Amino acid sequence: MHKGRYKHITQKEVADRAGVSLSAVSRAFTDGASISSKTRIKIEAAAEELGYKPNILAQSLMTNRTKLIGIISSNFENPFFIEVLDLITKELQSRNYRCLMENLTPQSKPEDVLDRLLQYRVDGVLFLSSVLPTIFAEVCAKAKLPAAIMFGRANLNGHINVVTADNYNGGKMGVEMLLKRGYKKIAFLGGPINATTTIDRKESAIKTLKEHGLKFITIEHCDTYTYESGREKSLRLLNDYPYIDAVFCGDDILAIATLDSARDVGKRCPEDFGVLGFNDMSMASWGAYNLTTIKQPINEMVFAAVEIIIDRIEHPNLPTEQRLLPCKPIERGTLKKLIKKDSKFRQQYPQTH
Amino acid sequence: MHKGRYKHITQKEVADRAGVSLSAVSRAFTDGASISSKTRIKIEAAAEELGYKPNILAQSLMTNRTKLIGIISSNFENPFFIEVLDLITKELQSRNYRCLMENLTPQSKPEDVLDRLLQYRVDGVLFLSSVLPTIFAEVCAKAKLPAAIMFGRANLNGHINVVTADNYNGGKMGVEMLLKRGYKKIAFLGGPINATTTIDRKESAIKTLKEHGLKFITIEHCDTYTYESGREKSLRLLNDYPYIDAVFCGDDILAIATLDSARDVGKRCPEDFGVLGFNDMSMASWGAYNLTTIKQPINEMVFAAVEIIIDRIEHPNLPTEQRLLPCKPIERGTLKKLIKKDSKFRQQYPQTH
Repeated sequence: MHKGRYKHITQKEVADRAGVSLSAVSRAFTDGASISSKTRIKIEAAAEELGYKPNILAQSLMTNRTKLIGIISSNFENPFFIEVLDLITKELQSRNYRCLMENLTPQSKPEDVLDRLLQYRVDGVLFLSSVLPTIFAEVCAKAKLPAAIMFGRANLNGHINVVTADNYNGGKMGVEMLLKRGYKKIAFLGGPINATTTIDRKESAIKTLKEHGLKFITIEHCDTYTYESGREKSLRLLNDYPYIDAVFCGDDILAIATLDSARDVGKRCPEDFGVLGFNDMSMASWGAYNLTTIKQPINEMVFAAVEIIIDRIEHPNLPTEQRLLPCKPIERGTLKKLIKKDSKFRQQYPQTH
Repeated sequence: MHKGRYKHITQKEVADRAGVSLSAVSRAFTDGASISSKTRIKIEAAAEELGYKPNILAQSLMTNRTKLIGIISSNFENPFFIEVLDLITKELQSRNYRCLMENLTPQSKPEDVLDRLLQYRVDGVLFLSSVLPTIFAEVCAKAKLPAAIMFGRANLNGHINVVTADNYNGGKMGVEMLLKRGYKKIAFLGGPINATTTIDRKESAIKTLKEHGLKFITIEHCDTYTYESGREKSLRLLNDYPYIDAVFCGDDILAIATLDSARDVGKRCPEDFGVLGFNDMSMASWGAYNLTTIKQPINEMVFAAVEIIIDRIEHPNLPTEQRLLPCKPIERGTLKKLIKKDSKFRQQYPQTH
């Protein structure tokens, strides 16, 4: 018996067994190639006997398709990411594609990462990041490689397809939720200062506050979208500004950390102190947190991103596209109940008579 | 200018530009193949000019190596999984391998999943599951495909490499932690009834209790290792057995759910009621939970699993191996402080005079 590493059965062996030419076997395993049904039956019987499995990689040299999508992400430390990855792998698998994962660490060189994916001849690339080095979009555009970024920002020079929640409107929505409930001394606790998600949420929040004659008591940024970073910054924030009555967090993981810090310093939430998150990750609904937040529509975002990439694999001349999907408020327990005194806001919530 | 889908530069084009044979170009991009340094310089210059990238997939037809490892998991709903996946992708990348992800859903057919990975000619497979269909181990063994399972159980007929925490000893450790602290009316809340992790922890916990003349008040199983499943079962458990004084959970996600349920029914933890987890996932240390648990050494487990697979890719005749790595207790706030009255346990914690 053959010992040692398994040698995959080759098309040549199938051809010999079936008594046909190698080219006939090759055609039998290429979609759309012509072959007589009599020959096909002989080949399929031989392949079955030998346990032959078509080699997608060998086929890719002819079809120029690997059915591989590169997934590049720097978000492995935010538990929200596993929910996104679960959806992406399922959506791609349902369309017969597979994910080649690339974990972008601070040590990764962007050029090497993309080079590696190009060496594997991925059919497309999906970036999951709000701090994407611009070189990525440029390299993909130059290589005419179908690519999309999720959690990025629209208008990256139109070089790359973008699927994103409407973070700008989400920032406005968040401030309105806080003001309607009577919070006035509000701090902003964002993620990395260069993360477009945080920037867009913050900018529109500042603008909305200004329209109401207010501004943030302070604006702080965490180095990463992680619990540890959120804990450190929120404790300092509560210590330095003990009179703030709410924190608008740029991400649920930071909001969860802020709730733990608030408990540590004896703040009662939501009576004394409101916390608002962003994302609606699964932990936001956990009993100990019960976090009021703004939902990113990740199901719709994943569906759109996969659709955009596959459309461009199949129709290479399609122009780049940007899809902005709406956020929505999720009411839970970390903001006070709605105050309906303000007539301006009552107009938005008309009562039936 | 060329419009439409990017056509990768071929070795033929590089050969033409460099004025050398195709076979020389092929040798220049194959590790260990012989070529004169003068020819190599000409080829490298031409490749650089044209923007040629070696095609790993084409090379794989010659080398029989893709540097791809298939990762098969059914754990995308447990946030612990993202920590494991972060470690695995980093460890594989540091060794110049990449992950081809397969999200095993209840709808996935095991044969199809493995077939697909074999079609991509992965160099090895890593299973992350405690409910592995036995067919996987058999197919990999038959195909002589280097494979390892993490979070499984040793002794799967020796068909497959296994890297696992010592769950059996972990179960004993857990019961001893509970008894030492004076808990006596203990329930067990495990994961799926067919998950080997849960089975091993439970069996040894039962045995250890028996040695102390005790038994679990009740043994319950969740359908999945998820928060939702843990919430439902733990609420029912607290309702049906209001007199239990501790729950030993087969996973942190179930323990976190139990803590939320205990809060809902007004149990004070750890005074009235102790909760013990298993894993030490990152959320176990979050302020709202501060969960006492038993740590699985996932850093060491990931390192071992990757080492075992790569060793067997490089040395195909190595026998299968089983590594059992020790768990350790992580003291936090969900069990009472240690009672040192019991002389038997005092012996294990000798005091200096």
